[in-house]
Amino acid sequence: MSQVSTKPASGMRDFLPAEAARRRRVFALIEEVYQSYGFEPLETPTMERLDTLLGKYGDEGDQLLFKVMKRAQKLERALNRESPGETDLADLGLRYDLTVPLARIVAQYQNDLPRYFKRYQIAPVWRADRPQKGRYREFVQCDVDVVGSTSMTVEAEVASALSEVLDRLGFGEYRIHLNHRRLLSAMLEASGIAEAKWSGVLITIDKLDKVGRNEVIRELQEERGVGREAVDRLLSLLGAQPTLAEENQGTLDRLREAVGHLEDGQVALKELTEVLRFADGGPAGPRLIVDPYLARGLAYYTGPIFEIRSDEFSGSIGGGGRYDELVGMFTKQSLPACGFSLGIERILMLMEEAGKFTDEPAPADVLVTLWDPDFTPNSLALARELRAAGLRVDLYPDGGDKMGKQFGYADERGLPFVAILAPRELEDGVVAVKNLKTGDQEKVPRGEVGRWIVERLPGRS
Amino acid sequence: MSQVSTKPASGMRDFLPAEAARRRRVFALIEEVYQSYGFEPLETPTMERLDTLLGKYGDEGDQLLFKVMKRAQKLERALNRESPGETDLADLGLRYDLTVPLARIVAQYQNDLPRYFKRYQIAPVWRADRPQKGRYREFVQCDVDVVGSTSMTVEAEVASALSEVLDRLGFGEYRIHLNHRRLLSAMLEASGIAEAKWSGVLITIDKLDKVGRNEVIRELQEERGVGREAVDRLLSLLGAQPTLAEENQGTLDRLREAVGHLEDGQVALKELTEVLRFADGGPAGPRLIVDPYLARGLAYYTGPIFEIRSDEFSGSIGGGGRYDELVGMFTKQSLPACGFSLGIERILMLMEEAGKFTDEPAPADVLVTLWDPDFTPNSLALARELRAAGLRVDLYPDGGDKMGKQFGYADERGLPFVAILAPRELEDGVVAVKNLKTGDQEKVPRGEVGRWIVERLPGRS
Repeated sequence: MSQVSTKPASGMRDFLPAEAARRRRVFALIEEVYQSYGFEPLETPTMERLDTLLGKYGDEGDQLLFKVMKRAQKLERALNRESPGETDLADLGLRYDLTVPLARIVAQYQNDLPRYFKRYQIAPVWRADRPQKGRYREFVQCDVDVVGSTSMTVEAEVASALSEVLDRLGFGEYRIHLNHRRLLSAMLEASGIAEAKWSGVLITIDKLDKVGRNEVIRELQEERGVGREAVDRLLSLLGAQPTLAEENQGTLDRLREAVGHLEDGQVALKELTEVLRFADGGPAGPRLIVDPYLARGLAYYTGPIFEIRSDEFSGSIGGGGRYDELVGMFTKQSLPACGFSLGIERILMLMEEAGKFTDEPAPADVLVTLWDPDFTPNSLALARELRAAGLRVDLYPDGGDKMGKQFGYADERGLPFVAILAPRELEDGVVAVKNLKTGDQEKVPRGEVGRWIVERLPGRS
Repeated sequence: MSQVSTKPASGMRDFLPAEAARRRRVFALIEEVYQSYGFEPLETPTMERLDTLLGKYGDEGDQLLFKVMKRAQKLERALNRESPGETDLADLGLRYDLTVPLARIVAQYQNDLPRYFKRYQIAPVWRADRPQKGRYREFVQCDVDVVGSTSMTVEAEVASALSEVLDRLGFGEYRIHLNHRRLLSAMLEASGIAEAKWSGVLITIDKLDKVGRNEVIRELQEERGVGREAVDRLLSLLGAQPTLAEENQGTLDRLREAVGHLEDGQVALKELTEVLRFADGGPAGPRLIVDPYLARGLAYYTGPIFEIRSDEFSGSIGGGGRYDELVGMFTKQSLPACGFSLGIERILMLMEEAGKFTDEPAPADVLVTLWDPDFTPNSLALARELRAAGLRVDLYPDGGDKMGKQFGYADERGLPFVAILAPRELEDGVVAVKNLKTGDQEKVPRGEVGRWIVERLPGRS
């Protein structure tokens, strides 16, 4: 054995064909749904300038960036400095998410983009997190965003597209929790909590369904420094956490009473009402739950926020919201935007666990065997005919091998059919076709064999 | 303007939707062809351990690797060394090609892979080359390889698959130059050139069609240190460079006379004859030209080698060959392999220049307009109906805008149809559909509008 490890690097994964094909089929389905909502693909480079990325994801994010070393003379010069640091030695970073690159794109190409820029991007991102089960250093994000409109039709359409993806992937039970950043502000204001404490308080209340009410109360008082009275006021404004779409009207009525007199509260309630009205009748309609506890971590959200949850699994499988100020980080003129990121690695893992990947198509439809080396041109001609009929055809390469060995290879690859062309068949103008599942073997006239197999492929009818 | 540049990093490219969609369509076609030959997708991580990559691409390759810095304590420890170098500070590198990762995969998962492992991989690779027109630091490679067989059916099938790709992409004129590493060895041996000089001599003769015969003679004598007599012998063995498939038999006969008495020559001529015989009747048949001058740079080739050339452009748009020893770099037991890499970035550029990307599909089929904000739920319902009919539907988000502005947006995005639902249409149970190309507008019964548009989409018949 060579001394070099042949495992993938820490936190990275190899996808052998069966898994790679499954992933591609799921991505293709997501693309198809996004396209049906008028979204277009965008591709940005794997690496961005380090200064494009730094400072966009907080201190922890900066630490988790994979940084790429300067090259040649630039590197030499940096190494010759007195105690050079990380950012002296690196000039590029690997993409950390798909949102900052989108903001850069919008700033750079604003004049070339349509008034409403609707893009999706399904692409890997990299984070130097400590690897653990289900957490990788290279993972795919599936983002869909609309830049250029403040209309709540955007929120409704994005939520519908996501629901359609999950419905088509076979997720039965899930909820789209919906809240509004300005509703949270209004509630914090109405509770009399100082603005400096808001971001910490939001992190705590977001955890309600994980840690429970008592722990939230303890944390708010002991770790966030909120007085007992303010905690009581806040929790009474927040009320019980809703989990059913039927409760939405009641939740909105209650919140209107609580914070409808504040400007932030008014705007938020109007917008949330619109999102619900616009999503009604579509796939997201029965999934949306107004949840005053939903906070979401990212600081850049400015309007409605979403998160997909389910009783069938803990945590979230996607989230997003409106971020009307982010593009402004790269350009003078800011642009409204709203988007959503699907936790596709999580989704793939849940689908795997739920056994949703059975009955996947074989890697090819038929193996053409080789009778003996001299017979190779005949088998190659048959393979061409079968391909012309639309079949995916593997050809056994080594003509000296026994038929049993050749069948064994077809079986090992999971192919449904084997086509045998021996001198006798050639003379009779037929092909012997073996169904590897049933073991049946039949002679089919040469001119019909392509169509014959096509009609009998598993999954086609 | 902010101080941060919003351009992509040097040598990298952003692909806005129209171009991203074009690239995806070309990749999808290539995948379809590869799958029809029984190839399966493989995905390997973007980053490999640096020691997996170093030493595999020569000194120049090592320099061109993008190296990723160590993180946290590991980086600190490395920085604290006395004058740390590049490989002290970095532990990962970005993928430089798709062949070395394939060799690692085969070594790591040998027991999980079928006897013949047929994989394709269409994925970006990175090289810190000086960027120039048509040369990027991030570019996609399209590789197809078969591991596990020494049969020349593999060469024939790979060449057929490539020809089918090029034929379907609309390339009219191209040749697949074909040679054999052991034929080159035999000719060098028969010319009496010392083995130490072979690799330099190969680099020179490979340039014949670029620099001409006289320059090759000069370079062989002055730079490669080959005596006048040996040069004459070699050039007389090589003969004139063939450019037509009709010359193949003559070329082989001539070579048999010249080096058929040497073992390398015998094996090479037998294998080349087989490749031609197996490819005959398929798409690669009329494209293959036995060319004794073809050498190809990479040292790891051991058998037949290929390169795609055309009089319509200079240089190559792809190449490959047999490399029976490469997998052995990662594992004790070596495995025969043969593969091909398509220069897809070059191909995309040539297609663009040749105007092959006209008449591309629009990013969506129809825009549903918004009559006024209160009418939004009606338009959303129409959008759902049209999607259910299989259409890709964009919804105009801002209900306050005039119809002319909404039509302008559809036009800006290049959409073929606009669907208008005003109070009058709603009452009459119809939708007004405007064809933006012809300007015609027609009222279509609500229940039929989806099918009506589907039938009139450009490109469908």
